[in-house]
Amino acid sequence: MEASDEHATRERLVRAAIALIPRLGWGEVTTRKVAAHAGVRPGVVHYHFASVSDLLGEAAVRSTRETLAAPMAALASAEDLRSGLDILLSALDTTADDASTVMLMAESLLAATRDAGLRARLHDLLGEFRGEVTAWLRRHTGDEHAEATAAVLLAALDGALLHRTVDPSLPTDALRLPLERLVTAGSAS
Amino acid sequence: MEASDEHATRERLVRAAIALIPRLGWGEVTTRKVAAHAGVRPGVVHYHFASVSDLLGEAAVRSTRETLAAPMAALASAEDLRSGLDILLSALDTTADDASTVMLMAESLLAATRDAGLRARLHDLLGEFRGEVTAWLRRHTGDEHAEATAAVLLAALDGALLHRTVDPSLPTDALRLPLERLVTAGSAS
Repeated sequence: MEASDEHATRERLVRAAIALIPRLGWGEVTTRKVAAHAGVRPGVVHYHFASVSDLLGEAAVRSTRETLAAPMAALASAEDLRSGLDILLSALDTTADDASTVMLMAESLLAATRDAGLRARLHDLLGEFRGEVTAWLRRHTGDEHAEATAAVLLAALDGALLHRTVDPSLPTDALRLPLERLVTAGSAS
Repeated sequence: MEASDEHATRERLVRAAIALIPRLGWGEVTTRKVAAHAGVRPGVVHYHFASVSDLLGEAAVRSTRETLAAPMAALASAEDLRSGLDILLSALDTTADDASTVMLMAESLLAATRDAGLRARLHDLLGEFRGEVTAWLRRHTGDEHAEATAAVLLAALDGALLHRTVDPSLPTDALRLPLERLVTAGSAS
């Protein structure tokens, strides 16, 4: 195969895993099923990935990164704290409406409790997002504790995403005021 | 069977489900396996529960309620905002160290995306905890937005619990300052 074909095949496998994890559940996505969904022979999976866990891990990281790419880019050029918070809350709404992505995130966090390699990948990914949120807070506040504030803010957003699965009525607007207090309290110090 | 025996059997089934969900994963806990673990015939499960999903739902609610019973009782008699926050942060530490409970919570939230009955049960449970946290905030602050603050605080605690699964180094102490800001900001208004 040419390099570009190889890349396209690998990409089809990642897309197939992203589609199948929410539908079947993490543990049910086998080499055979992901190959069938991608329209390739099962051996092709093992040509591209050391194991099916490795493929699932890449799918989880890729999906989360794609979900957050646009909001993180927007955050980097947000004019102030409030407009940055608007960006994050609107990302929460968009993600919450996309049940497959929420399920993929929840499935991957759960699988990470049983898989050290996946845990390391998600640890790095979380660190990356925390770094971007910390940088945004530092640009707009004198908060010496921007890193801790970023950790709490991201935890609150992920927790709210999960709570929305059992309480879809929880309005993002209701969360805005306490989150504004959380991020602006550091400005005063 | 006498009523007390029936109660004991039902209880054994709930305990078996609480033990098996984190170990096998929600979807793998079958009537047969839960009966074997509890030391009863499979038919006994259906005598006590309409379905295995019903048993799993009861196990999820029971486990979460038991995990939070002591902290919620302590919160009700906390002397001030800070001591209440200490109680919640120490509950976060205790729960984070108990991998089975974290996995059971994550498994049940994930299962709830696929099961409306479970979703309704977890919705009620979340509402109950939010009510208790709201009441604590109202006792110690003049926060008009105590309900929204409670929703964000619980989301932050649940999110931190999940983030700890991929980042065990995240210290609870680091979260204290931003969470203090979150809950005390309402006192000033």
